[in-house]
Formats: sequence, C-alpha cells, structure tokens
Amino acid sequence: MAQPQVSFLQTKLKPDSFLHRKREVVRENTLLYQLDVLKKTGRYDAFKLQWHDSYSDEPDHWPVPNHLFWDSDVGKWIEAAVYFIHDKKNETIENAIHELVDMIRSAQQDDGYLNIHFTVVAPKERFTNFRDLHELYNAGHLIEAAVAHHDLYHNDKLIEPLVKYVDLFCKTLGPGEGQKHGYPGHPEIEIALIRLYEVTKDPKHLELAQYFIDERGNLAGQDGKHFYTSEAEARGERPYERPNYYPKPKSYWYNSAHKPILEQESVEGHSVRSMYLLTAVAALNKYRPRSDYQKALQRLWNNMVDKKMYLTGGIGAIKQWEGFSIEYFLPNGTDEGGCYSETCAAIGVMMLAERMLQIDLDSKYADIMELCLYNSMLCGMSTDGKRFTYVNQLASSDEDPDKKAAWYTCACCPPNVSRTLGFVSGYLVTTSHDSDKSANINVHIPAAGTTAFDVGGKVVKLDIDSTWPWDGKVGFDLDSAGVQTTIAIRIPEWSSSNWSISPKIDEPDVRKGYLHLPSPYLRSNSQFTINFPMTPRFIAPHPFTNQNVIALARGPLVYCLEDVDNDWVTDHFKSLLLNVQPHVPTVKETQVHDKVTGEDIVAMHISSHFSFLKVDGQGAMDGVALGTCAATEMSGGKKPSFTLPQTSFLEVNGDQKKEVMTPDGKIVEGLNFVPYYFRANREGRGHMRVGIRIGTS
Amino acid sequence: MAQPQVSFLQTKLKPDSFLHRKREVVRENTLLYQLDVLKKTGRYDAFKLQWHDSYSDEPDHWPVPNHLFWDSDVGKWIEAAVYFIHDKKNETIENAIHELVDMIRSAQQDDGYLNIHFTVVAPKERFTNFRDLHELYNAGHLIEAAVAHHDLYHNDKLIEPLVKYVDLFCKTLGPGEGQKHGYPGHPEIEIALIRLYEVTKDPKHLELAQYFIDERGNLAGQDGKHFYTSEAEARGERPYERPNYYPKPKSYWYNSAHKPILEQESVEGHSVRSMYLLTAVAALNKYRPRSDYQKALQRLWNNMVDKKMYLTGGIGAIKQWEGFSIEYFLPNGTDEGGCYSETCAAIGVMMLAERMLQIDLDSKYADIMELCLYNSMLCGMSTDGKRFTYVNQLASSDEDPDKKAAWYTCACCPPNVSRTLGFVSGYLVTTSHDSDKSANINVHIPAAGTTAFDVGGKVVKLDIDSTWPWDGKVGFDLDSAGVQTTIAIRIPEWSSSNWSISPKIDEPDVRKGYLHLPSPYLRSNSQFTINFPMTPRFIAPHPFTNQNVIALARGPLVYCLEDVDNDWVTDHFKSLLLNVQPHVPTVKETQVHDKVTGEDIVAMHISSHFSFLKVDGQGAMDGVALGTCAATEMSGGKKPSFTLPQTSFLEVNGDQKKEVMTPDGKIVEGLNFVPYYFRANREGRGHMRVGIRIGTS
Repeated sequence: MAQPQVSFLQTKLKPDSFLHRKREVVRENTLLYQLDVLKKTGRYDAFKLQWHDSYSDEPDHWPVPNHLFWDSDVGKWIEAAVYFIHDKKNETIENAIHELVDMIRSAQQDDGYLNIHFTVVAPKERFTNFRDLHELYNAGHLIEAAVAHHDLYHNDKLIEPLVKYVDLFCKTLGPGEGQKHGYPGHPEIEIALIRLYEVTKDPKHLELAQYFIDERGNLAGQDGKHFYTSEAEARGERPYERPNYYPKPKSYWYNSAHKPILEQESVEGHSVRSMYLLTAVAALNKYRPRSDYQKALQRLWNNMVDKKMYLTGGIGAIKQWEGFSIEYFLPNGTDEGGCYSETCAAIGVMMLAERMLQIDLDSKYADIMELCLYNSMLCGMSTDGKRFTYVNQLASSDEDPDKKAAWYTCACCPPNVSRTLGFVSGYLVTTSHDSDKSANINVHIPAAGTTAFDVGGKVVKLDIDSTWPWDGKVGFDLDSAGVQTTIAIRIPEWSSSNWSISPKIDEPDVRKGYLHLPSPYLRSNSQFTINFPMTPRFIAPHPFTNQNVIALARGPLVYCLEDVDNDWVTDHFKSLLLNVQPHVPTVKETQVHDKVTGEDIVAMHISSHFSFLKVDGQGAMDGVALGTCAATEMSGGKKPSFTLPQTSFLEVNGDQKKEVMTPDGKIVEGLNFVPYYFRANREGRGHMRVGIRIGTS
Repeated sequence: MAQPQVSFLQTKLKPDSFLHRKREVVRENTLLYQLDVLKKTGRYDAFKLQWHDSYSDEPDHWPVPNHLFWDSDVGKWIEAAVYFIHDKKNETIENAIHELVDMIRSAQQDDGYLNIHFTVVAPKERFTNFRDLHELYNAGHLIEAAVAHHDLYHNDKLIEPLVKYVDLFCKTLGPGEGQKHGYPGHPEIEIALIRLYEVTKDPKHLELAQYFIDERGNLAGQDGKHFYTSEAEARGERPYERPNYYPKPKSYWYNSAHKPILEQESVEGHSVRSMYLLTAVAALNKYRPRSDYQKALQRLWNNMVDKKMYLTGGIGAIKQWEGFSIEYFLPNGTDEGGCYSETCAAIGVMMLAERMLQIDLDSKYADIMELCLYNSMLCGMSTDGKRFTYVNQLASSDEDPDKKAAWYTCACCPPNVSRTLGFVSGYLVTTSHDSDKSANINVHIPAAGTTAFDVGGKVVKLDIDSTWPWDGKVGFDLDSAGVQTTIAIRIPEWSSSNWSISPKIDEPDVRKGYLHLPSPYLRSNSQFTINFPMTPRFIAPHPFTNQNVIALARGPLVYCLEDVDNDWVTDHFKSLLLNVQPHVPTVKETQVHDKVTGEDIVAMHISSHFSFLKVDGQGAMDGVALGTCAATEMSGGKKPSFTLPQTSFLEVNGDQKKEVMTPDGKIVEGLNFVPYYFRANREGRGHMRVGIRIGTS
C-alpha cells in the first residue's frame, strides 16, 4: 500500500459530498488566502535570503526565533497546493509554486545547506542545536513538498536541492566517528526521508531515517552523554538554562527522547512530535519490519487512546509543553487545568492511525482516524477556509474563549489542514493486489467517492454512494473488471451492534472490526448496501478522568453547545447539568441550513432532563470549596434524603416539558447542539462545551 | 491581644486531654529525637563554622544548597524547646539550648552578619540573592527563637546577636539611595521582626517589616526593574536560567511577588511563603492598621478558602512549586494531577487565621484554624512523635504511597509541628481587658484547659471541661474574681444548626459565628454547658473541582480509609463508590483503643451503600478513555435505562447488608474509617483516601 499522499489519486471524492466541499474550500479560498499571508508576513520572499525586520524580534519561546519555522510554512503550502493541482490547474497557484521552487533552489549553499535562519541570521550556529532549532524539521517539510512536487510535475526541480541537502545530513549525522550522533528535536524528517526513498530508492535515505529512530533517546549517545546534553554543553549552555517549554532541566521527554523508543511505555511530551515520530516508526515498518518496534507502537498507541485522548480525538492536555499529561488527566479547558488538543496533533494521530492500519487491519485504528478527521482535525479550519484554530479545547473559559484566528506566529496548523484535505481521500480507501489476478479493497471510511486502480491493465473500480458523515446508509457498486476482488469494510465501533448489509450474508466474516466480503459474494452482488444507523448517542470519558460529564455524538461526529444557539449562557455551560440517570433524555435531530456559513448540518436538540447547578454564597465552611452535606442520623429514625453539596436543582423535569431557569433567571427552552467541527464559525461570544456535567433527575 | 506564642502561657491544657497528650509526645519524644537528628546530620555543630562534607553536595533544587536551611532548623528547634521548658525544666534540652546559643553568638561576624552557608561556604555571595537563598528566612527563625528564649530566660543572650544582625539588615536594605530595595524570597522575617518589636519596642524593627511588605512586588523597585530581576542580572544570571521551581522565567508569583500585595487578587505560588507573608501583614495591622491591607487580606483569605483549599484544610496542589494552582484545581493525589498540602502550609494557615481573628472576630477564620489544627497540621507527625510528613495528600497512589518519614533534607516541617504544639493553647482561647474592671474571653476552640489572666491584680479564670475533638459537650466554669467579664464562644460551622446551651438563653446573641455571653448571664451562671453535637456528616468539595467525591467528617475531624483497616484494597480505594443518592448510608461510630499506637480514637464504619467501579477492558472506542454509552432511542418506544459508561456496579445494596465484592473478587464487609490525622501510623501498605467517588444506588 502506498502512503495516502500518493494513494489519494486513486479515490475521487463525489461532487457535493461533505469532504469534497471541504476540499473545494481549500482550493477556492484557503490556498490563495494562505499565499497572501505568506507574502504579507515575509515568508514568501524569505528564501531570497534578505534580512527581514522580524528577525530581530525577541523570541516568544526562547531559544526558538519566531521566524524559525518559515521554511516549513512555505514547504507545507507548496505540498498542499500540489495536491490540488492534480485534478485542476490553477495559474496563480502554480506560478507561485514555480517561483518558490526557484527561490529555494537559489537559497542553497555550495555545500548543500538550505535553511533561512541559519544562512541569514546565525550562520555560525548551524548544526549546533538539533534539540530546539528545527533545521531537520524544516528540511523534512521541504522534502515532503519536493516529493509531492515530483509526483505532480515529474521533474527534479525541487527534489534535486533537497537530495543534496540530505547528502549533507548523511555526512554530518550518523554513527561514525567524527559524525554527530544526533537526531531532530522535532521529528518530521524521518517521515520525509521514507517518502523520499520511495522516489529515489536510495537506501541511504531509509538508512538515515532509521538511524534517527534507533539513536533517539540514547542516554549515552554522544561522549557518554545524552546527545542533547552533549550539544548543550558544547554551546556553553548552563545546567539551569532551559527553554520555556521544559518545566525542569533536561525534560527530554518533551521530545520523546528521554529513553529509546523501544523502552518507552507511554506517550509523553509534545504531542505533535510524538505523533510524527511514531508515524515514521510505523511507516518504516513497511521496508524494515521489526516486531519489537511493532510492539512498541501498539503499546504507545494503546496508552494514548486509552488514557490520554479526549472524546474528540484530541491529544495533549498541557499548554506549557503542548502535549501529554499524566494518564487520565484530561480537563475540558483552561480553567479546569488544561486542554490543548492541537490541530497538528490530530493530524498526527490520523497519520499514525493510517500507518498502523497498514501493519494491522484493525478497526480500532480506523475508528480513531475517523474521529480525528471529522472532529479534532476538521475543527481547525473555518467553513470559509480563512480562519484557523491551533488549540481545540473541549470547553471554553473567560481566559480562552472559543474563537478562530486569522493566522499564528507559529503557523504550523493552517497549512497542515490544507495539505491534509488535499490528500484526504487517501485516508478513506486503500487497495492492494497480489498479482494481476486478485485485488483487495479496504474501506476505512465510506465517504462518497470512486476508487479506481489498475490491476494488470484492468481497472478495478469501487463506487461508494453515501452522505457520510450525516447518514449511515452506504451504497457500494463494484466493477471488478474480471479481477478476483475482495473488500474489507470497517464496521464503526458506534455501529458495531446495529449495522446491516443487503443483500444479506448469513454468517458475515467480521475480523478486528472489518467485514470481509469474499469474492463469491461480490461476484453475485456487485451492488450492495450497508446501513450503519447514526442514532444519537451519549459518550463519556473514563471515570478516572474525574470529569463526570456526558457528551452527545452521532455517527462520526461529536457535538457541542455554543452560545450562538443557546443565547442564555454566561458561564461557558459550566453550571449546566444533564440529568441522564435513570433515564436519558429524548434527542431530536433536525437538518439545518445555516445561513451565515451556508453549511448544511444535522443539529440536535434536548428539551428536558437538564437543570442548573446553583453554587451558594462565598462562605468557606458554609458552602463553597469546603461544603458540608446534610448530616446523617446515626441510628434509628428516618434517613434524611441527600442532595449534592452546594447544589440546588432549580428545576428538575422529566420529558414533560417544563420551564427551566438559569441561576440568573433566564428561561431556557432547550439545549441546541451542533457538530464540534462547526464550532466558532458564526459570530458568537466564545462560549462552547462538549462534555456536560452529569446531574440526576 | 498578644501573639499565641506569648498568650499560650495563659491557658494550661488539662492532663490527659487530647492536645495535652499530643504536646507531651513532643516533650517526651520529639524534642530529644530531633535534637539527636540535628547532631547526627551536622546541623547542631554547624554554627561552629567548620566545613561539613555535605556542603559539597549537588543541590536538589538549584540554586538552593541542601544545607541552606540549617540555621532555621536550629532556630525552630530552640524556639520549640523553649515553649516546653516554661512548664517543666529539662536538663538535657536546656543544656542543648545554652550550647546552641553560645555557638550562634560565636558565629556572628564583626559586622553583625550571622549565617552558616554565607560564612563558611560562599562568603562572597552574601546579600546577592534574596530571591532564592534564604538569608532573611533563616534570620527570621533565629529571631523567633531569640524572642521565645528571651520570654523564658529574661536575658539577652540570644536576642543580642540577632538585634545586631537586624541592624545590618536595616543598613543594607531599605528605600534609601545606596540601599538594596530588596525583600526576602521566602517571607518569615517580617513575622519575626514584629515579634522582635514586641520585645525591643524599637520602631525600626517594625519599620523594616513594613518596608518588606510595602516594597514586595514593586515592578520597578530597583533601577526601574523588579528587584529580583535586577539582582539576578547583577549576579550574571542569564535570562533563561531559572530555579527548578520556576516553571517559566521570572515566575515571581512563586514568591507572592509578582505585584504589590495590595493589588493581588488571589493567593499564588509557594503556599508556605504566601501564608507567612499574609500572617505578617495581618500581624502588622495591630500596630499600623490600614484598611487597604485589611481588604487585601480578606480578599486573599476568601480566595484561598473558597477556591484553593482541600477538605482537610490543606493548601497547595502543585508539587513543582509547592503551592497553589488555578482556582478549583484540587486533585486528591499525584495520579490525578497533584496534591501537595504541605504541613508547614497548614501551620501557616493557622497562623494567618489567628491574626485574622484579632482583626475581625468571625468564626470563618476559627473554623479553618480548627480544621487545620486537627487535620492538615496534626497529621504531619506520628503518634510517637518520631516520624513526619511533609506532603499530605488526600489520596495515595503507587507513586506516592501514604507513609511517614524519619526526616527530610529540607526539614522545615518536623520542627514546625513541634513549635506549633509547644504554644498550641495560644490558638484556643484569647483574652483582653479594657481597664482594670472589664475583661473579655474569646473561646475559639473549646479544648479542655484552664485560662487564667490578671486584670488589675485580680485573676480571671475560665475552666473548660471537654473531650474535644471526640465529643461536643463542653462545660464552662468562670471565676471572674469580681471583674465584669464577657465571653464569646465560637459556634463551629458544623454545629451551627444543632448546638444548645444550658442554662438556656432566650435570645442568644450570635454575631459572625460567635455566641456572645453578656456579663449578667455569666454573673447568674458561672457554670454553664454548651453541646455541639458531633454527628457524623458527609462533606464534599466544590462541584467545580470536578472531584465528584464525598468524605466523612465528625466534629473537627475529617476521616479517611486506610488499608490497615480495609485489607482488601489494592488500588488506593480508587474504584470504590459510595452510593449516597437518594439516601446516605448509616454510619456507625465506635470508640477504639489502638494497640499499636496506644491511641484512643472514634472510628467510623459503613456497612452498606458502597460498591465498586468496574473498568472494562483496554479497548479505545469500546471502553476506556472514549466510552460510548447506551444509545438513546430517537422518538417513541421505551427509553433505555442508563448506566454510567464503563461502569458496572457489581453489587448495589441498601441498608440490608449484602455481600459486596471487589472487582478482583474479595468480599468486603464494610468500610472502616479513621481520623485523617491518624493515618500512616500503623504499618500499612500506604493505601489511603479521604474523598470517595460518588455512586448511585
């Protein structure tokens, strides 16, 4: 199986389907908008190697200059743009690609070196701080751009300077005497080198990726010390001098480099770095399979999903290091102790999930891939494709209202969403064939589209007709062109007990969450339908998260409340209670055309079973942090009934609709939910929440 | 009103009363044990100014040498010891006091300087790092020792060198040109200077305390910069070099010095520093009352108690800076995100509460003072007085089992408990008299004791007979000796609705939680009884803490579960559910004599209404961090009943006793609770929990 950045060309999204519309927004708005931003901020011309005023700015996060990522911003934009040119030419965008490629070529130094900051600003500091200063990260994104560029234009214009740059890395870094035994502080180049190998077939590209992976976290890698310690000492750094994102000295877990990957028991530190690293480990498995790395991947995947992932698929609770906290520590927002859930991290989870599926076709990976795609990733861009989020909390607060922004100083997320949507169809369906005679198709996410691929000159074609993610009815139409074909279709976890196929199969072959359709069935039934009923459902985080909340979901989508649809809210829905025991409320679903954004969504409404927490007074012992409940009687007598401390339910109502009032006296008719991806798109006050506190009726 | 370190002499605890026994343990065991430790570790002889091997140790917390607190350890031991000599001479202890005093005197330099580290180890670094290096903190504890020493021996042997040392501070620090505009990184000397003033009546001692308070947090205090920044630059510190306890550069909130006290809206940073600072502000009010500081004190007190205090009275959730987190962030233990609750911080809360009562006689201060005394402070020492805790979590974990330790490298807490118990009766009752004819007695905590004080040659005497904290029946016997006397008695919050007095009063005068007994009543009833029924009660933290737990309390005592009494536990009671809705369980109380410790306690037992959370499997979508609940039906049909996600109640039982089984199959007969202060005294496995997860029956 190819990487999704290549295989997406097999699958054409259907016009007017959900993902197609999202992708068209990027084509029509985002690429041009982002190009404009690149030009305005100085990024576009930066490879001309002239001084830019912002190069003198104090860094927001010492020791990382704010402009240090500019190479990657350009690289990601080129990569994203290229994916859209395959199916439709665009002169403005292509002229920009060509101009940028020319500038990048001209920026290369004689020895192959190719980096804006270390050529213009700090030439003497080249290769002195792999831990913090992103030389390899930037190179990685330029390499990915070059590979994509090569796939489109079939020329070496961009790949040539990058191959030359990699030659310099191969000389500088490695196990040999006189070489630095280093590896990137921010993994990315490992992924890029594996993709580069797929074009060049030069084993040293694979070799360098593997070296970075194997060497990472070696506690005695350089002169008997951790490489980062050794290079810090060589820089003259003092023992207690450390980046802002290191809470303590030598917090190498921030970089997933506190010990070798094979010894790591849990995902730690910066979540994007962790995901990019593990994606590379999983991708390398295709060429150099090793069961010890496979085991490490499974262990770290499970640790992340079971103990460190939000209901939306988001990862990373802690702002300081943009990453993972201890297990089960998943507060909903800033005022509860954190919630970072960076857009790029969701993209990283998707990348990792896809590579894991190549190792092991298990729906547990595809379930999470789908969750991230439709929730924690997609929410990172506005419906018009011109505003973005970096952080994706599950609840807003006065300190961090739920808003989208036009751009970021560290602008990793916006172009990352663009490129992900560029090749998004590569995540949906993958194919393989063993010989000229037999083929297999894996349907991970049945979004509407047509997959076609060549098997010995014959074109096998699978047409999928659906309105995913809004409805679970999916029509399949296979044209096997005489090739013996099997299909494996993921049964989403949320539909595992209620899906059905027509024409029926007596004993469906479901393994690891995939329905395997054998070729005899497909020969008799080239057209078949599967229904995955999208009943609204309640989901909740693990009890050990201490969240005690419940959220609404439907199909692949997680829902949230926003002030735009619930105008009475003044406290970010913090005092709202959803009373789900002993009976859950009725949920009403409605198709809505939103006039502000033009978006068609399924909204949900709950008109009963909710109430408000009333927090009494300001007193200490009488009420707030140290509450006293109704006393028990010691023996005999009647037991007093018990209400939660400091809680008075203003109104408790069953399904018979009654008026519910907020603590400040506003009447609330019902709760209006919209998909989480849709949040912060209309002009609101920034109040939003996914998980609602559980009450009792 | 005098400080409790002086006024305690008025109140004699009754033999065999609870606090008397605790105090005798210190006299009989702790002082000698700690003296022995001082000798073994090198602290005892350190004022001889010889080199000690440990002076070369790498600091545990750069830039603070591990031995930096030794001056204060000695000072606190002297201070504690002195309080016990007042009522009973002890040759061993007094010889040690005299010898230490001689050593301290001989350690003073010609210019008055008096500090072990900066004389022996780093003489050139004197007065260069007030932020981190504890010169003023150490001096403060030596001054407090000197004042206590003076009160006992009525000589100047220890106070003389300290006054001379303070002269040096007065020269070095202050608003004048050429003076350093500095103040201590760890407040303490402010408290000490006010106490010193009470002996010397030298206004410059008060003046220096006020300077430290007023100057603190001045953002442009030294050369247009924050003093700490200015002195760090002068030391050649680099901008990104910072102590381990500073999560980010210039985290001056750690020192409560991020802005002037008058502008601070919330308690922040290191909790002991915060408490010592505010205690000094409140103590200064006696001599220099200012309404702006009073308002700041009330604001910060309320912020702390309402939003940043544990059920036990403990403060400080975060280990890295030993202090406060954001509001309502109060996890029970390490595996939930933190819980520090340092013993010294509880002592600081008691000190602050006592000073606040002098400003405003409001039971809200005394309630918290009592809570800390009997829970978060008292738990810091073992029943035999030879083992201690520094951190007092509300729940143990595998990482931090609940254990007491013999000593600490940074040994602030053990001698702090000793000195607190030395003058503990000063917290119980305070007195005042306006003239020779009228007197007032405030009873904050009615522990058994006799308070006697002189009013114009007549001795007014109040005898309190109780078994506090075990029973709420309190007998009072006043001998007013013809002085017109009033008494104000605190009505504990936990008894505010069920207390009674005999002989009865028709319209009791209760103001701010104190029952004011006028002199006519007392003339007719020199003996009277008040009953504060100690019914077991359930208490819970604020809902915004997201803890969803309930704890058991009785009178002033908070209770906990320990593995010693509940031997089936293997998970620190993490999966235990107490099912308090709609009815709370019956609580059975028993008087228990513990054979291991000799302690007599009231234990509590619950034999129903509990169950266990069963957390299914390891799968992601099917179970753990991302749970899916039973789906709702959309319309019509029957509503499915709802159980909490991932939760299966193995057995739900009412008061009819049934067998309850743990997830690993052990039968549990009931839950056995002991007072929190009593925890970690018997040889257990370190499993302990205060707040039990709320379930439903």
